[in-house]
Amino acid sequence: MNILEWNQLSITEQTQALRRPALAQGGREAQVADIIAKVRQGGDAALIELTRTLDRAERSTLQLSEQEIDEAADRVGTDLKAAIELAISNIETFHRAQLPTHIALDTSPGVRCELHFQPIEKVGLYVPGGSAPLVSTVMMLAIPARLAGCERVVLCSPPPINDAIVYTARRCGVDAIYTLGGAQAVAAMAYGSESVTKVDKIFGPGNAWVTEAKQQVSSDVNGAAIDMPAGPSEVLVIADDTADADFIASDLLSQAEHGPDSQVILVTPSNALADQVNAALEQQLAQLSRADIARQALSESRTFICDDLAQAVAISNAYAPEHLIVQTAEPRALLPDLKNAGSIFLGAWTPESVGDYASGTNHTLPTYGYSRTYSSLGLADYQRRFTVQELTPTGLRAIGPAVELLAATETLDAHKNAVSLRLAKLEKQA
Amino acid sequence: MNILEWNQLSITEQTQALRRPALAQGGREAQVADIIAKVRQGGDAALIELTRTLDRAERSTLQLSEQEIDEAADRVGTDLKAAIELAISNIETFHRAQLPTHIALDTSPGVRCELHFQPIEKVGLYVPGGSAPLVSTVMMLAIPARLAGCERVVLCSPPPINDAIVYTARRCGVDAIYTLGGAQAVAAMAYGSESVTKVDKIFGPGNAWVTEAKQQVSSDVNGAAIDMPAGPSEVLVIADDTADADFIASDLLSQAEHGPDSQVILVTPSNALADQVNAALEQQLAQLSRADIARQALSESRTFICDDLAQAVAISNAYAPEHLIVQTAEPRALLPDLKNAGSIFLGAWTPESVGDYASGTNHTLPTYGYSRTYSSLGLADYQRRFTVQELTPTGLRAIGPAVELLAATETLDAHKNAVSLRLAKLEKQA
Repeated sequence: MNILEWNQLSITEQTQALRRPALAQGGREAQVADIIAKVRQGGDAALIELTRTLDRAERSTLQLSEQEIDEAADRVGTDLKAAIELAISNIETFHRAQLPTHIALDTSPGVRCELHFQPIEKVGLYVPGGSAPLVSTVMMLAIPARLAGCERVVLCSPPPINDAIVYTARRCGVDAIYTLGGAQAVAAMAYGSESVTKVDKIFGPGNAWVTEAKQQVSSDVNGAAIDMPAGPSEVLVIADDTADADFIASDLLSQAEHGPDSQVILVTPSNALADQVNAALEQQLAQLSRADIARQALSESRTFICDDLAQAVAISNAYAPEHLIVQTAEPRALLPDLKNAGSIFLGAWTPESVGDYASGTNHTLPTYGYSRTYSSLGLADYQRRFTVQELTPTGLRAIGPAVELLAATETLDAHKNAVSLRLAKLEKQA
Repeated sequence: MNILEWNQLSITEQTQALRRPALAQGGREAQVADIIAKVRQGGDAALIELTRTLDRAERSTLQLSEQEIDEAADRVGTDLKAAIELAISNIETFHRAQLPTHIALDTSPGVRCELHFQPIEKVGLYVPGGSAPLVSTVMMLAIPARLAGCERVVLCSPPPINDAIVYTARRCGVDAIYTLGGAQAVAAMAYGSESVTKVDKIFGPGNAWVTEAKQQVSSDVNGAAIDMPAGPSEVLVIADDTADADFIASDLLSQAEHGPDSQVILVTPSNALADQVNAALEQQLAQLSRADIARQALSESRTFICDDLAQAVAISNAYAPEHLIVQTAEPRALLPDLKNAGSIFLGAWTPESVGDYASGTNHTLPTYGYSRTYSSLGLADYQRRFTVQELTPTGLRAIGPAVELLAATETLDAHKNAVSLRLAKLEKQA
């Protein structure tokens, strides 16, 4: 990785150095809109045809049968099932702790105000296909849906759908599994078809087609809401000279192997560590099956030498990383000052991989700088909050005159009248 | 209002009857993009020029001075100040109760997982101008921002900015008030200028220009996030024959006076009540200053006669109203079955106006059917959640092998290696 002295950079160069690569956008809008239109018009027939032409898969039905699910589950090894159980247990524990408590209080005597929580009724999960069967994505998306109480949870993944994905989906309580990928899967879940349930909200990662389709259906009120904006995965590591260079290199590579557009940043006050990490990267790269991808990602990545850990924290806050790893002598001491990160990994024994799979936290995180305003995925994303109020005559008498005056100030007569009528009625009754 | 028998309608007619009017969209995209580009390039000078040409206001500075704020505050009457205090007190009480509690637990021995909450650093509030000075909007947007702990809270409202808005903004702890309106105000807050703070998230209602500008800046990662999608205000009332027709008419008119595109729906099993409400509407309309607006809105509105309250609940759930008023003999009995509403008002003494101003709940609510997936505005919208994890050697030994197997299944070698390296090191140390 390129090593840069932070303080040698001008403000403009610093900003430039923290800039993310431009997202490969454009050109797909019309094609995705066309796929969505086809699905809305043609339903299952269009989906089967799109799957044939785009995914080169021949299927007469989209939903996996119970028998297909059984057979897939039988083919999953016992060891993998045990690993999945352990991950599920931790993810469930952490997400169950996020179940909200209703709020109910009187803001004034006789003025009852309540905050209620309700599951989003129907949710759709998208699990990408390709070379890596993303079992972890199934767990991260489906477990909070079930804990939140969603009535129907469906999942789409492109053909050929992996056995472990099928097994995990069933284990996590998914109601229906469809062999559908790309923009057509998103369209099917957003608008429904003869065999695919129309859902209220769509969750999950995907390629540029999926991302564009999620964008389009979420800007249509008759489509579906989506979890969060997408972007390439990224990690920032803050380390001091007590850190283990091999560990850091392995964490950087965990990110770099995701794709050539993954971003990887190391911030350290230690020149020696920066050099050691670069040496360790070369050594470890030699043994990786995805070395080419990782090498491409690293070629765009940077190490910043900073003055001290306070400056490292400032750089991280400015970048707002998806994953933030802190490998310093006292990692927790930095926590109060760390802002704008999706998930934080403290100390030498907490590689990013544990959060990706099994610590219990969710690996669906805001990336591309969105961690300034967006949250890591949690139970709250599968529920909605609404308020309830109920006034007694005493309550209305207490706040009614203030409401009348405020409504009059805003020149909203009818708002005022709705109170005045009732106060007059109470007067008569008294 | 048109009275329709629900069960006389075909499924298609029912769907049609609950359809919202199409949003007046299109045509503004290019003009708004042009305004945003001007603001980004020209900063304060462009903002002053846009304010001169679009708002016909001559100002050499955009931010109100302390003296201007003092003078405006002095002009606000004592009675209005008292009403504002009462509303603030209730709104603060309800929103303070929403302050979240951090979560920290061990999902497995030695595997610590935490959920932290953090205020969004800088937020911008938009308060529309026009004939009605929306004092209540200032309170609803600014109070949760301050309680959430946002570091900087700024507010834009078009010139001439109303004294009561200025007073309330200061009273609610807004740091800077700018006399800026429309798309240029949104652009200024999203990208910043010499005198306007760039913010992370923009809150508040607005006309079609503001809405389009919010949409555009929120789809740019370098812009700003926004609170929720916009749409015309709406109310649905469920009432039985115990309800007071005058009260219901006044509640329907409170909604109808907002604008000609406001939607108003009454659902009742009682034919007699439907007729009484229509009579009461005519009577009350005669006395309203905004009667023309309300009449236009009512011409598009409908009363549905249903079989019973269970069917009324089903109709409401299908429509997913912003405001839902329940005026029945036992309103709370329906609550467990009511889904998809922004805010619910129970019983005869709870007109919508109390929630609009002073009960304590937030009046910023998902409309246009978005209440299926979006929440009423709350403290949570001014904060972000992120996770933290920290493993001890014991913790890593416990879950490490499962992580290795899951990573291998997903063909992510480097993810696996980040754990293997550490487990090997622990082995050596032991």
